[in-house]
Amino acid sequence: MLEKIDLSRQLPKADYKKAKDKLERKLATLQRQAKDLQMPVIIVFEGWDAAGKGTLINELILPLDPRGFSVHSTLPPNEEEALRPFLWRFWRDTPARGRIAIFDRSWYRHVLNDRVDRVVKGRRLQQSYQDILSFERQLADDGNIIIKFFLHISKKEQKKRFNKLRKNKVTAWRVTQDDLRRHKQYNAYLEAIEDMLARTDSDFAPWTVIEAHDHRFATLKIFNTVIAAVQHGIKAAQRRTKPEPGPAPAEELPSALAATVLDNVDLSLALERDDYHRELKKKQKRLRDLEYGIYMRRIPVVILYEGWDAAGKGGNIRRLTQELDPRGYEVVPIAAPNDVEKQHHYLWRFWTQMPKAGHIAIFDRSWYGRVLVERVEGFCTEADWKRAFHEINEMEEHLTNFGTVLLKFWLHIDQAEQLRRFREREKTPHKKWKITEEDWRNRKQWKRYKVAVEEMLLRTSTAYAPWTIVESNCKWHARVKVLDTVIRAVEEKGLA
Amino acid sequence: MLEKIDLSRQLPKADYKKAKDKLERKLATLQRQAKDLQMPVIIVFEGWDAAGKGTLINELILPLDPRGFSVHSTLPPNEEEALRPFLWRFWRDTPARGRIAIFDRSWYRHVLNDRVDRVVKGRRLQQSYQDILSFERQLADDGNIIIKFFLHISKKEQKKRFNKLRKNKVTAWRVTQDDLRRHKQYNAYLEAIEDMLARTDSDFAPWTVIEAHDHRFATLKIFNTVIAAVQHGIKAAQRRTKPEPGPAPAEELPSALAATVLDNVDLSLALERDDYHRELKKKQKRLRDLEYGIYMRRIPVVILYEGWDAAGKGGNIRRLTQELDPRGYEVVPIAAPNDVEKQHHYLWRFWTQMPKAGHIAIFDRSWYGRVLVERVEGFCTEADWKRAFHEINEMEEHLTNFGTVLLKFWLHIDQAEQLRRFREREKTPHKKWKITEEDWRNRKQWKRYKVAVEEMLLRTSTAYAPWTIVESNCKWHARVKVLDTVIRAVEEKGLA
Repeated sequence: MLEKIDLSRQLPKADYKKAKDKLERKLATLQRQAKDLQMPVIIVFEGWDAAGKGTLINELILPLDPRGFSVHSTLPPNEEEALRPFLWRFWRDTPARGRIAIFDRSWYRHVLNDRVDRVVKGRRLQQSYQDILSFERQLADDGNIIIKFFLHISKKEQKKRFNKLRKNKVTAWRVTQDDLRRHKQYNAYLEAIEDMLARTDSDFAPWTVIEAHDHRFATLKIFNTVIAAVQHGIKAAQRRTKPEPGPAPAEELPSALAATVLDNVDLSLALERDDYHRELKKKQKRLRDLEYGIYMRRIPVVILYEGWDAAGKGGNIRRLTQELDPRGYEVVPIAAPNDVEKQHHYLWRFWTQMPKAGHIAIFDRSWYGRVLVERVEGFCTEADWKRAFHEINEMEEHLTNFGTVLLKFWLHIDQAEQLRRFREREKTPHKKWKITEEDWRNRKQWKRYKVAVEEMLLRTSTAYAPWTIVESNCKWHARVKVLDTVIRAVEEKGLA
Repeated sequence: MLEKIDLSRQLPKADYKKAKDKLERKLATLQRQAKDLQMPVIIVFEGWDAAGKGTLINELILPLDPRGFSVHSTLPPNEEEALRPFLWRFWRDTPARGRIAIFDRSWYRHVLNDRVDRVVKGRRLQQSYQDILSFERQLADDGNIIIKFFLHISKKEQKKRFNKLRKNKVTAWRVTQDDLRRHKQYNAYLEAIEDMLARTDSDFAPWTVIEAHDHRFATLKIFNTVIAAVQHGIKAAQRRTKPEPGPAPAEELPSALAATVLDNVDLSLALERDDYHRELKKKQKRLRDLEYGIYMRRIPVVILYEGWDAAGKGGNIRRLTQELDPRGYEVVPIAAPNDVEKQHHYLWRFWTQMPKAGHIAIFDRSWYGRVLVERVEGFCTEADWKRAFHEINEMEEHLTNFGTVLLKFWLHIDQAEQLRRFREREKTPHKKWKITEEDWRNRKQWKRYKVAVEEMLLRTSTAYAPWTIVESNCKWHARVKVLDTVIRAVEEKGLA
């Protein structure tokens, strides 16, 4: 496909100046409109070395208001980045609503350079393509306009440009040994690029190949493409009517989901005091030893807690971490999103907090808030939370593909036990702050929450990231069960 | 001093349990009170290897609400951190209002390990102490409670603990070669520690030495110290009456400052069109070549723009960056602080955005907002902006000590020119968005702003970070002058 492209297209200087002035103004206007509509825009520049990415990006940003965009240069991953799934750093850099993010190289590095260098191959290559498609689709579903350019030059043209740079003492440094090596591999890259363009061209994130021999032609084609895409996005956004939050879940499950998990939980499971103390100490010590292995073997561990109010999440997390080295773990408490977080995809704030390989992140509540509290209380639309099941599964698959040990605990108690604990909290001076009006309000919604929980357990229990239901009427049992589950999951990674 | 401390103090188990229960509850209550008062708390743990930092931190955090604190482990700086001034990562990790930040080792690494290893010595050691004192004082002035522990054990005790760990196969790995090397250097460290404790013990951030031979004694002393400090802070906060914003500046300067800078600026300086285009191209090209040297020599560059509305900041920045490689620079636009930023010291958001060594950060407006718009509009108190002059100078000194090229541009136009530009903006369709009601309001305050600007120029023009006033009635002159100033400053770093 790339070989059939006519690279000889040129544009005379006189036509160029006038056309460009007009397009620049158009683009500046569109940037303001996109901002007013809170529409995020992602522009990806990929292309051959010496195809002129830097210069063309500069042309594109010149008419833009610098307060509204960022340019992200994708170098080989640094220490922080290499210890995380490959999409981590790109999630971090996705634009806030109304902003433009321009990527000078991007997540496609992974299926180009890493592929040609055979760092990524076989099944991992397929996974990477799938991860990329999910990533782009999730962002598009959240309102992002995604524009992807591939700057194309022939092998001969590349050679010519390298030679010109090398002849001049001031610019010779810009051609590196790696550039020359890749030039020799032009055909291997060509194949990888064709494959990439074919597999990742989609309605929601299409590729545009830019004939980059003539700078003027390339500049105007880029301007025109961005303008068309943003205009299209603006029109679509204006047509869209703001959907109402969905109805609260019914108090009963639809019959198709009638086999309920929660009703079959054996809440009579309990431990005696002496057994508890013995087991707790033993398992805490075991986990502390494993923590060192986790670090040495660079295993990322993600543990998340969901559960009814007063199910004992806080106390459970404390027992889990009591003997751990604080350098090896972090507890990430999740409350309502703040200002900055609201300006992003709802998964953004979780992505940015994923642990480095070798570390343990413990989420006290999690991304499941989307299909629990946000669903029940109508903080998001029905389409939002319905889409979330799939988005969550994709994220968790990406994490586990990277080797993450991912554990999800639902701390379960029954209504009677919750009532007992609420009352105890009200009676005990130093526990009173733990119980608020909101807890009582949530309690009244028990049935609706139960429907949401059941559906969550059903739709997000996957082979790679199953839920563990923790019978928590007896806190002692619950604490030991969580410790035990974590220990076994880590041991399965081959740690002794 | 440390050698005179009685390390034999112990606590019987029975007393301990009861006392600890009580202190834990007290601490949990205080955490909630500090949160309600929006008071940030910083707790530093320094001490000998094997003194028990990890375990004692775990004891301290056990009664705390995990949603309200973070533990930061200070390892040797990673790639991101090593390329920035040493306090950068600690600024980043300072707690938001109402939160507790616990540091497992801290900025004191720099005057302990780095000093004993002779990485930091002589003048740089003195600077480091000064930087640390400024850092702590600025945070204390902003309402932070700072508590610093040094966990002390004797050389003999350290040896005993190392031996015990090494005898057991499961724990042997915890004693590293570095630990043993440092054990041999116990006396060199002792000297560095004594010096550190003496020089950095202050009213606003006092040290407490913890006799750490007996775990129980150490635990209770830590609890008691934290409780006393937080209680003291709470009382002080409650006594403090909320100060009113200061009066807007007078329209005239106090006579002591009467020699004004701005009135003597020669605004007739101008360039002809042809000269402008020739000079611009030449200097842009020169800066592009220097950009590579900046990267190779790992020089951090900070360029900030302040100036009157419509003075031409945006256009000036664009000409500065037009030919640069986008991977080497970033434009950081500064607007009103967001939710998250408001929860921190006002310098926090600037600290977190300081460039890596080898990169250029261009601030479009800056930390000077504190002494300009925030002062004139009464967004902060008089005490706040008066303190800011000194705080800013300290921050800039810290940056330049690290080798940063720091350039500060005031883009100056007169009132007549501003009026002409405002009117032009109103008349030109594609410029109309640039002019708002607020611009007209600010214009009415010209005299008050002028007083603020004059005082800023006077108080923050330092030898290490002088202001450059850019005569901007002629935009062409202004653009070439900025380019020229940047080029000369970079060349002075020895780049050809």
